This record gives sequence, C-alpha cells and structure tokens, in this order.
Amino acid sequence: MSERVGDRVSALVFDVFGTVVDWRTGVAEQVAAIAAECGVDLDAWSFADQWRSRYAPSTERVRTGERAWAYLDTLHRESMDELLEAHGIAGAFDGAARRLVRVWHRLPAWEDSAPGLARLRDRHILATLSNGGVGLLTNLTKSAGLPFDVILSAELVRTYKPHPAVYRMAARLLDLEPAEVMMVAAHVNDLEAAAGAGLRTAFVERPDELGPGQVSDRLGEVGSDLAVRSLIELADSLGC
Amino acid sequence: MSERVGDRVSALVFDVFGTVVDWRTGVAEQVAAIAAECGVDLDAWSFADQWRSRYAPSTERVRTGERAWAYLDTLHRESMDELLEAHGIAGAFDGAARRLVRVWHRLPAWEDSAPGLARLRDRHILATLSNGGVGLLTNLTKSAGLPFDVILSAELVRTYKPHPAVYRMAARLLDLEPAEVMMVAAHVNDLEAAAGAGLRTAFVERPDELGPGQVSDRLGEVGSDLAVRSLIELADSLGC
Repeated sequence: MSERVGDRVSALVFDVFGTVVDWRTGVAEQVAAIAAECGVDLDAWSFADQWRSRYAPSTERVRTGERAWAYLDTLHRESMDELLEAHGIAGAFDGAARRLVRVWHRLPAWEDSAPGLARLRDRHILATLSNGGVGLLTNLTKSAGLPFDVILSAELVRTYKPHPAVYRMAARLLDLEPAEVMMVAAHVNDLEAAAGAGLRTAFVERPDELGPGQVSDRLGEVGSDLAVRSLIELADSLGC
Repeated sequence: MSERVGDRVSALVFDVFGTVVDWRTGVAEQVAAIAAECGVDLDAWSFADQWRSRYAPSTERVRTGERAWAYLDTLHRESMDELLEAHGIAGAFDGAARRLVRVWHRLPAWEDSAPGLARLRDRHILATLSNGGVGLLTNLTKSAGLPFDVILSAELVRTYKPHPAVYRMAARLLDLEPAEVMMVAAHVNDLEAAAGAGLRTAFVERPDELGPGQVSDRLGEVGSDLAVRSLIELADSLGC
C-alpha cells in the first residue's frame, strides 16, 4: 500500500476563526442584538467585516515587535473603539463594551466542524492553534461543543501567527517533531508559515468566510499537502 | 439563599497524578508487563513506589532553581535510571526505556473521575493543573477519556508546583481572578500553595493513592474551602 500524506502525522492543529467557526455570522448576529438593546443604529454585518479587517494590522504590530505583547481581547477592544469613533458613535456601547469584545468568545461552528473533528479525534491529537487567547479559545470551543484535546494559542509565546515561533511551540508542547504535526487552516498565509516551520499542511476551503463574493483563499491557490472542502473530507483524506 | 463556597468559581483546575488518575496501579501494571516481556525480575509495585518517591525531590531541584528547567519525562527517565542502577539492573530495559518513561502518559482514572468531571463540566471550565507536561497530559486525558476543556501544565511557566507562578498562570491564562479559580487536589501541600496564590481550594481524599495503609493526605488534615471523598461529591457540593 502506498504511503499516505498523513501517515506520520500524530497531531492536527487547527486555525479557528474562519477555519472551524464562522466568525462573521457570529459577530454580526451578536452585535446586531446588542445594538438593538442599546438603541444603536448599525449595519452589523458591515461592522463585523470592518472589525475583522483591523485584526491583521493589529496583530502584525505585535508580531513585528512594533508594540509589546497585547492579548487579543485588548486588540479587539482598541479596534472596536476606533471603529465606533469612525462611525461617529464613540461611547454608544459604554455599558456593553465588555460584552461586545466577548462576542469573539462565542461563535458558531461551521456545520461540518464538530462531526469532522469527532472522526479525526479517534486517530489524532486535536489542538487549536489560533491567535485567540487560551481563555477565549476555551470559552469558544466549550460553547460550540468542539472536541479538541488541547488548547494551544499564540498567547503561549506572546506573539501572533504567522510568526514561526507559534508553529514551533505547538510541536514542542506536544512533544512531537514538526513533521508529525499538520496545520489545518482556511488561509494560505497561515499554511505557508506553518510549512516554513516544518509542519505538514491541510487547506480547508471556506468560501463563505468573508461573505458573498469571496475571491481569496480558494482551492487551487495553495501548495498544501492536502486541500479539502470540509473537515469531513479531511477525515476521508486521512483515512479516519 | 445563603452563598455557596463555589458561587464565584468559574474554573476548576485539577491536580492529576493521584487526584484524577491512579498512578500507582497504572505504573505498576505497565512496568510488570514490560518487565515480563524483557525477562526482568522486578517487584513492580515497589518499583512504582520508589519511582514516585523520587518525583518530589527531582521537581524540587527545578523549582528552587538548583537546576535549569527539565521536562517531567526527563526527570522520570533520570530517576528510573538511578533506580535500576540501585537494583543492580542498569541497562536491563535499554530497548524499552522510552516505553517505560511513557507509562506515566497512560494511567487509569479513579472510578468517579470521568462521571464527576462530566457533571462539573456543565457549569465550570475544567482544566488540568499538573506538573506533567502539556504533551503528557494531553495523552493521559485523551486515553483515559477525561473531559477537560483545557490542558494547563507547570511546563507553561517552566517550573513545578508548588511554585506560586504555576497557580497564578492558571488564572491569568483563563482570564480570571485567582478567587474565581478553585484548585482541586488530593495533596495538602498543593492546596496550601494554591490558597497562598489566592485560589479557592477543594480537597479530594484519595486514601488508596499510596497503597494500603496510607496515613498522609487524609480528610481533616487540611483547611480547604471544600473537602470531599470523590469528584461526584464535589459536584454535589458545588450544586452541579
């Protein structure tokens, strides 16, 4: 029998926002509900997109050392405040600011995530490997019923993906060689960085992550070891 | 209604060796099997006790800074080698040394552990907080089917309990105040250190941890917030 790409892989480490959970729907629906409660008029879907668009630049400043380590909740709070200011509604959510920041702690999983993970879990260690903090990821995976074995976060090395230290930390803490670990993500840049750190890679296409008309991060763009359309298909590919 | 001791507690963090799993039975049975395979004559129960008795002194040397950080598998390997030497059988397990060290990665849970955790999990975040490494604890909880939400280990601060940094790390990574975290352990010294770091405490009596005739770490010895005989009783006490 020919060797399969996953034969040496003991652990699968998962990007979370976009790959395992649908942040856009989760953030927009919760923001809409809080805005309604607070009597604030807001296009929640557009707000979710704008909020997320500030995520990469804000984590980038930490990753490059331009600013000291800051927890993702802190970055989310800062970019939310900037955004409210830009919309001319600074302070509108004052009493609800903490609840708003924590909408990122409770997001719906894609339909295939829980059943796919359940199959993959029989033969692999399943870890998160996200820029969300340990506390955030714990709340998120618990509330969404996602059966991870261990929560790994960029917080543990106080920087952000795609810094290579994050991927190396995952292998080190799991007591594995990088080549025994497979990064699963819906984002090309995440997988390229993981491959650079010696991990195997699986791309999962999430064509609805950014809403209608998404053109980036599509199948065919990425030279990963595996490329699939769901975590069910990933389980099939790995023979689980 | 009167306030319950656990009312402000969001997360329960568990000592593992002795508190959640029966290391003595697990180590003795696996050592006996490997010794039989290798044709080595050994009292496996006594070997397990002697191996474990070297655990506190070896972690103590790291904790006090007498030696640099070393992973628990490394300490287990060193103390195993010393012990085999003392028994006059150094090198007897050469081909199986790694398997022997890894018996600590696969240990049986006490009977009440999985059902107790399952009840506690509905209303609390459940974390390990052990001197075992992240990889070891992931293997251990996965193989024993223990439903923890997050694996926390002294490895994350590169020292060992009862160093206060370990307990503070747990609260920090869970994004909680120390008083919102309850340490659950079968060992008085662990709970005293946790209380010193501001955590709430629950003692679980494990009268068989050290085998017949155990006199230490018994109910009544400890001034913890709660004291129970099983994780089922802990769930009762916390109203789960």
